[in-house]
Amino acid sequence: MTVTSSSTELLSRAQRVRRSALELAQCSDAQRSAALQAMATALRRHEGAILAANQLDCHGATQEGLAAPLLARLKLNGAKLAGCIRGLQEVAALPDPLGCLQLHRELAPGLNLERVSVPLGVLGVIFESRPDAVIQIAALAIRSGNGALLKGGREALNTCQAIFTALQEGLAKSSVDPNSLDLLTSRGEITTLLQLDELVDLIVPRGSNAFVRYIQEHTRIPVLGHADGVCHLYVDQQVNIPMAIAVAMDAKIQYPAACNAIETLLVHQQVAAQFLPPAIQAFTAAGVTLRGDEQAMALGVPEAATPEDWGQEYLDLMLAVRVVEDMEEAINHIRRHGSRHTDVICTEDGAAAERFLGAVDSAGVFHNCSSRFADGFRYGLGAEVGISTQTMPPRGPVGLEGLVTYRYRLRGHGHTVAPFARGDQSFSHQNLLNS
Amino acid sequence: MTVTSSSTELLSRAQRVRRSALELAQCSDAQRSAALQAMATALRRHEGAILAANQLDCHGATQEGLAAPLLARLKLNGAKLAGCIRGLQEVAALPDPLGCLQLHRELAPGLNLERVSVPLGVLGVIFESRPDAVIQIAALAIRSGNGALLKGGREALNTCQAIFTALQEGLAKSSVDPNSLDLLTSRGEITTLLQLDELVDLIVPRGSNAFVRYIQEHTRIPVLGHADGVCHLYVDQQVNIPMAIAVAMDAKIQYPAACNAIETLLVHQQVAAQFLPPAIQAFTAAGVTLRGDEQAMALGVPEAATPEDWGQEYLDLMLAVRVVEDMEEAINHIRRHGSRHTDVICTEDGAAAERFLGAVDSAGVFHNCSSRFADGFRYGLGAEVGISTQTMPPRGPVGLEGLVTYRYRLRGHGHTVAPFARGDQSFSHQNLLNS
Repeated sequence: MTVTSSSTELLSRAQRVRRSALELAQCSDAQRSAALQAMATALRRHEGAILAANQLDCHGATQEGLAAPLLARLKLNGAKLAGCIRGLQEVAALPDPLGCLQLHRELAPGLNLERVSVPLGVLGVIFESRPDAVIQIAALAIRSGNGALLKGGREALNTCQAIFTALQEGLAKSSVDPNSLDLLTSRGEITTLLQLDELVDLIVPRGSNAFVRYIQEHTRIPVLGHADGVCHLYVDQQVNIPMAIAVAMDAKIQYPAACNAIETLLVHQQVAAQFLPPAIQAFTAAGVTLRGDEQAMALGVPEAATPEDWGQEYLDLMLAVRVVEDMEEAINHIRRHGSRHTDVICTEDGAAAERFLGAVDSAGVFHNCSSRFADGFRYGLGAEVGISTQTMPPRGPVGLEGLVTYRYRLRGHGHTVAPFARGDQSFSHQNLLNS
Repeated sequence: MTVTSSSTELLSRAQRVRRSALELAQCSDAQRSAALQAMATALRRHEGAILAANQLDCHGATQEGLAAPLLARLKLNGAKLAGCIRGLQEVAALPDPLGCLQLHRELAPGLNLERVSVPLGVLGVIFESRPDAVIQIAALAIRSGNGALLKGGREALNTCQAIFTALQEGLAKSSVDPNSLDLLTSRGEITTLLQLDELVDLIVPRGSNAFVRYIQEHTRIPVLGHADGVCHLYVDQQVNIPMAIAVAMDAKIQYPAACNAIETLLVHQQVAAQFLPPAIQAFTAAGVTLRGDEQAMALGVPEAATPEDWGQEYLDLMLAVRVVEDMEEAINHIRRHGSRHTDVICTEDGAAAERFLGAVDSAGVFHNCSSRFADGFRYGLGAEVGISTQTMPPRGPVGLEGLVTYRYRLRGHGHTVAPFARGDQSFSHQNLLNS
């Protein structure tokens, strides 16, 4: 790391967060829940200051000509803040992710092994304009026993600082050390943060795909996030056409900017002539622009798709349409152009559905339902830390379990390896869990 | 990636392995087990050719002056090969790591979510001289439904090729496509392999710490491996001295070159005068060189430790000794100098043991037993893929579960998100597992 005075200062702050996090990890379930309640109380007490700081940020952002969608994300009001506080209380009420006994085994008489869930340590969280993310991530971090270095967008600086002041004041009235959280305020600190691989265990980026990809490419620390969501819906030969149209419409138009919206529709050639005309009508009526291959165009898709359309994440009311020879061609298309996020088959043929669910290696493989269900809350995970498109676990929508790891505890009575190595003693390997 | 003819050729081979692996992932438990049995049979049939190839490699290595320990690892004989074949059959008999239902939940009536274990896809395995690693890793890969690109050491080339020919011949007689495995034979291919992040899901390096660290620093693909094993044993105030000496001796001398051997002994000042003299005597008698701080030297440790001794991985009959003021100082020493591999406390004080097991954030935290138990076979994991010192799971000794991930399967009947978003329908989130 290039040593500058600012990076040295951040290093010592990160070390302080790490020390505090080690003690936070010793706090009980009740203590961590109570800390979240104290954070909620402090946020309510500081509501005026937070909203005033937010007005200042919004004013500055308007003057600087921040784009309207970003401005909308930046803006806080009483109702939005109250929603954040409710979210914080919901996280407080979630089952404790720590101390779960994942394995309990007698290795030999008197020598017992446990595997228990423990915090990761310190999270580095970097997000673009939304200041409410500070509250959500701070809640998830403390609930899971992790310290966190939080970096918000420059345009939300005053709001983040006001929120952070409230959160630390809340923590000061709890058993959790307020130094478990720290707020980074300058852009240069991101570069330093991404290099702190001995102090930070996981980076959680929140923002655009380009932003997440930038983070992934500039750190050796594991990153929990997804850069691409190229989801497909395949309409099989034996299909309930009205159902497939309804599912496809929901998957495309219910929230087109979401990563779990579909970008490409694949249609079996045997059903294309029946399916496409009414589907094209429905999509067109909903304002969706369709781009298709030759066969799809012959059935009414108005624009031609270019090779760049396959695998494109439009995040908009756009949909690529391709007619495929059979399911295997659909599966190969998804393997080639997909991002292993979520892919759907609509079919009444149970064997075809099982083949698709077995052969498409995406984090989510769905049968006869909308790709938009791929979400931590909808999956019932309680809170969503993020959606991961990496292959290694945690994968797909990730709840609190994405912020914990495990530790092996072995308790003996003077046991040594030598007699086992010599063959004088042997392992019993008796599972003590669920028995 | 820099495109050269050799990298283009490797790219197309890796794509072939990936395609074959996708079909391998569809094979049943019985088919994958049978493939391992067929590999074992083929190895026995090719024993003569394999041992002849190995003699050629050993002859070449001797002429090139390969160091004796590496030469010992390179050498195969009938008994060693028979051991490998037995190991392969043991992996065949392990419980299937695939298809495990980790979560089963009704999201809403008729909309059911499952989370099942699935293969990662393709492994990239790079190992130094030991040719028997080809057999072990190929067995673990096929058992867990993964394709693998295998790269052995240059000095083991003939042996690896003979083994690989046998393995592919075995696979050809099974339901598993022989192209699920491929053997890389030139050093330049490692560079290319490390760049194939769209085709390779996990890199498993087997070799020296420096080798593993090199791999970690030169790829964006996740790496399952550990570069450092700096393990500590802390002797607490209330301790059974003969037991602590026996445990410390086993942890140091039973196999000093292992990553789970201890490198530093920390002794509570209140017990140092009783513990150290007999401990020094035992270690010295066993040929262990001790280096200590001032207080340890005052009690008989012959050499002075320099600051570089703390956190040093000797992998040899060397041990650093430090007298600490109390357990907190020991914990802080471990946090500062340890590698989060495995650390041990010897104490008769239950509360002290719990504090140590809670506060030391290493993959393994042990009470009154040797650090040498930190091992996949000793933990009863069946087979050891490797030991991971990363914080994120999989952590510590990793069995077959380190080679699998999971996939969410959602089955509906035309379910769309819109009515849930409008509030017309609500989620039931009923767990269907263990109920």
